[in-house]
Amino acid sequence: MASSSWPEQAPGESLRRQAGFLREIDRLKGVFRQTYLLDGSRKENDAEHSWHLAMYAMVLAEHANEPVDLERVLKMVAIHDLVEIDAGDTFAYDQAAHADKADRERAAADRVFGLLGEQGRELRALWDEFEQRRTPEARFAAAVDRLQPLLHNYWTEGKAWREHGVRAQQVLSYNARVGEGSETLGRLVETIVAASVEAGYLLP
Amino acid sequence: MASSSWPEQAPGESLRRQAGFLREIDRLKGVFRQTYLLDGSRKENDAEHSWHLAMYAMVLAEHANEPVDLERVLKMVAIHDLVEIDAGDTFAYDQAAHADKADRERAAADRVFGLLGEQGRELRALWDEFEQRRTPEARFAAAVDRLQPLLHNYWTEGKAWREHGVRAQQVLSYNARVGEGSETLGRLVETIVAASVEAGYLLP
Repeated sequence: MASSSWPEQAPGESLRRQAGFLREIDRLKGVFRQTYLLDGSRKENDAEHSWHLAMYAMVLAEHANEPVDLERVLKMVAIHDLVEIDAGDTFAYDQAAHADKADRERAAADRVFGLLGEQGRELRALWDEFEQRRTPEARFAAAVDRLQPLLHNYWTEGKAWREHGVRAQQVLSYNARVGEGSETLGRLVETIVAASVEAGYLLP
Repeated sequence: MASSSWPEQAPGESLRRQAGFLREIDRLKGVFRQTYLLDGSRKENDAEHSWHLAMYAMVLAEHANEPVDLERVLKMVAIHDLVEIDAGDTFAYDQAAHADKADRERAAADRVFGLLGEQGRELRALWDEFEQRRTPEARFAAAVDRLQPLLHNYWTEGKAWREHGVRAQQVLSYNARVGEGSETLGRLVETIVAASVEAGYLLP
């Protein structure tokens, strides 16, 4: 499967490289997260998650702490998980896997963005910016990246939290970052965590 | 599943409406298309497809016939299939289903974008613009929306084409729209179709 070579007659060398990259990143659809779809039927994959974050960013931009350039936010959320094609998804509350996460992801970024040659540098710089949360766009993108799985847990009655025995304090400290991008969304996190403990979705 | 009500203490009425919309559109992850993933393991869903189009738009923007505002293109591809939550995916070469497609999709747009109240008007206007292909952004978004499944068919050795007995002329006329957004990508379509016929992926 997926063995067809690129036709020699196809226009342009840049298009050949771009198509190679667009073909390779299809693998993001096979990287599964711990978060469930809202109907509880299966776990969500990284490509679906990235699309959902684009919708979160578009709809919630008014709540960002500082004005954001939405084009840059949308690009950032589209590419933020591409490294997981090589490095896999690391569950938020898996401390052992977090030890070498940064190294695994940097190597993956070198390879995946490298497929685009010179054009990949802009995307790699955006990914570095996202990881380092140095700009309003990166902080807002990171906020929605944390908020979305939190709401999925709440709306599925804590399905993934209960499977992993997660506690309220873990969720609060992991999601403290939401407030750095949006104080309003940060307050929402606290409300959702309190409601989840009360409903028994999350351990106190 | 997904029965948790919105906490009364959560900040703001607009946030309640926005969360309701972001929750509802999770259903896009369950709308399946005829296109296969490149590993051939299963069909692609609309959420994954929408994410992939965002990547296509970012990477291929230099090939647009006219300069495009990428933020508007990225928004358009993120929302372009939301109507299929209600209206379902209509296979490109199913003429019967195309007869009432426009009516079904307009009703869906009323409901889905309506969930966002006043804020939904901007997204609805973007969806109308995409459908009507009146602007460079809409024409370029429509071009990548057709190119992506074509390349998936080519890279999976015509898997969906062969299942439906599709002919080269059908593919060429359906994808004529690609050239309206990008002449370069339009030439690519012709090359891919010719190579697909030669390889036996597509009926002559």
